[in-house]
Amino acid sequence: MSMDKLIEGIKQKGNPSVIGLDPKIEYVPKSIREKSYKKHGETLKGAAHAILRFNRELIDAICDIVPAVKPQSAYYEMYGIPGIKVLHKTIQYAKQKGLYVITDAKRNDIGSTAAAYAAAYLGNTVVETQQIEAFSSDAVTVNPYLGTDGMQPFIEMCNEHQKSIFTLVKTSNPSSGELQDLLVEGEPIYSRVANLVDKWGQQSIGKYGYNNVGAVVGATYPEQAAMLRKQMPNTYFLVPGYGAQGGTADDVVPCFNADRLGAIVNSSRGIMCAYMKNGYDEKDFAKAARKAAIEMKNQIAKALG
Amino acid sequence: MSMDKLIEGIKQKGNPSVIGLDPKIEYVPKSIREKSYKKHGETLKGAAHAILRFNRELIDAICDIVPAVKPQSAYYEMYGIPGIKVLHKTIQYAKQKGLYVITDAKRNDIGSTAAAYAAAYLGNTVVETQQIEAFSSDAVTVNPYLGTDGMQPFIEMCNEHQKSIFTLVKTSNPSSGELQDLLVEGEPIYSRVANLVDKWGQQSIGKYGYNNVGAVVGATYPEQAAMLRKQMPNTYFLVPGYGAQGGTADDVVPCFNADRLGAIVNSSRGIMCAYMKNGYDEKDFAKAARKAAIEMKNQIAKALG
Repeated sequence: MSMDKLIEGIKQKGNPSVIGLDPKIEYVPKSIREKSYKKHGETLKGAAHAILRFNRELIDAICDIVPAVKPQSAYYEMYGIPGIKVLHKTIQYAKQKGLYVITDAKRNDIGSTAAAYAAAYLGNTVVETQQIEAFSSDAVTVNPYLGTDGMQPFIEMCNEHQKSIFTLVKTSNPSSGELQDLLVEGEPIYSRVANLVDKWGQQSIGKYGYNNVGAVVGATYPEQAAMLRKQMPNTYFLVPGYGAQGGTADDVVPCFNADRLGAIVNSSRGIMCAYMKNGYDEKDFAKAARKAAIEMKNQIAKALG
Repeated sequence: MSMDKLIEGIKQKGNPSVIGLDPKIEYVPKSIREKSYKKHGETLKGAAHAILRFNRELIDAICDIVPAVKPQSAYYEMYGIPGIKVLHKTIQYAKQKGLYVITDAKRNDIGSTAAAYAAAYLGNTVVETQQIEAFSSDAVTVNPYLGTDGMQPFIEMCNEHQKSIFTLVKTSNPSSGELQDLLVEGEPIYSRVANLVDKWGQQSIGKYGYNNVGAVVGATYPEQAAMLRKQMPNTYFLVPGYGAQGGTADDVVPCFNADRLGAIVNSSRGIMCAYMKNGYDEKDFAKAARKAAIEMKNQIAKALG
């Protein structure tokens, strides 16, 4: 079971957090950017090479204390083909360093097309007699708006290849309630989605009691998280919204179960851009990221008591 | 206004249809595949090169009779970096041939990340002093589950760059009702989404009375389409589900307004795989596709009366 692999990383490092790798080029220290532009010009390739170096140094700096990374696909796609090459290399590098990799791509489509996405991000692509990995990572985020038949290929791929998905349930953004909080017979939509997520996961409960169909539940909505935690006891939560988006360590506590498992909390800008605060020299960006990651770990541990 | 551009293509060709380019490698004639494998092996690159040739010949065969193509991103992503290069080249080639290109990627995320997707698929990516196109096409499909703040960057990019989006409202798949049909105070969720889509588009109504925030409305649900057509008079519909998914020409009629505009109907497998039926030799795949595209055009025209 893939969620077992994540849980073992969390236990080993005593740290239920994941570092988001959302590398807008503006986040990369100027010296790294300039060196890359000198070689490749102010091009997509120039940006992408700088991002790859930034990512690798960040991964090196945190891989012994953090169990997982979450590259956000949008920030690679925006740099075109060179950007997507860097997404691929980042996934590979993080896997080599023993990290659990969650590709944050929020993919979704009708069944036949969802199967193509599942092959791309979780399994293998079949080319005649060959089975080849495209962007295979440990987990991918998915959007549930199309219902069960759009999810089934992802779920099957998870079960077959020991991978996981995290399904959007209650997202961290300010407008998340616009659709997600609408009431159906007194029950919010996100709760209806949670029921589906719970059902989709029941066929894959692993040795720690969690299944491989996770849920995205924003740190910015702790009351809803508490309700969802009870509703989906076997579901692992991926919790965005900590740090830069306003969620605190106390806010994420309701996402955890009594076993101190059940949630992995993401911080992206708070770690990647830590060097921009507190008077760091930009060459110390990786040191600053490591320090911020340790602080985050400690804050969550303290809040969990 | 970008939707004006689509409408002008539809008027010029007298054809409200779009050809979906969803090229699973199994759809590509064997002779093209084998030639590519001979050069590149049974690899992602081998598959991707075969797909590119297939796409180009399909585009050549239909570009004078069809106004638009819709590459489905999943079927390129599954072939890794070589696949995504082919997506890029397919978008470029279709644009050169005067086609309106809708990238079917169903992207969605929180605002800051949605801005990265919007840059990738509709606008430019900023690298220092340069503004560079990544995968820029005329339109992209988006998923509304995160609400307005996840949509706003797409809408702004559309308004700024004369591009369009098509937002999932009522999808064509069998499970679409699982969430989309749930009733909120007697009104289905898809209708709530439709209200938002209508509102998001009001700032961009073009000369034909349509705005640049379109809607995805499945051909497989004609009754709901009729309701949505009245509810969103200024919204262009992208209509999947025709042909292989079961939707007929009569089923798509409710998606049109009295001006015979307001909808563009997609067929993917029905065109790409036309050669597999009716005893065609596989070398005539492009001819078969053209014939199927003409039949589709005629069937829709007949149904519209």
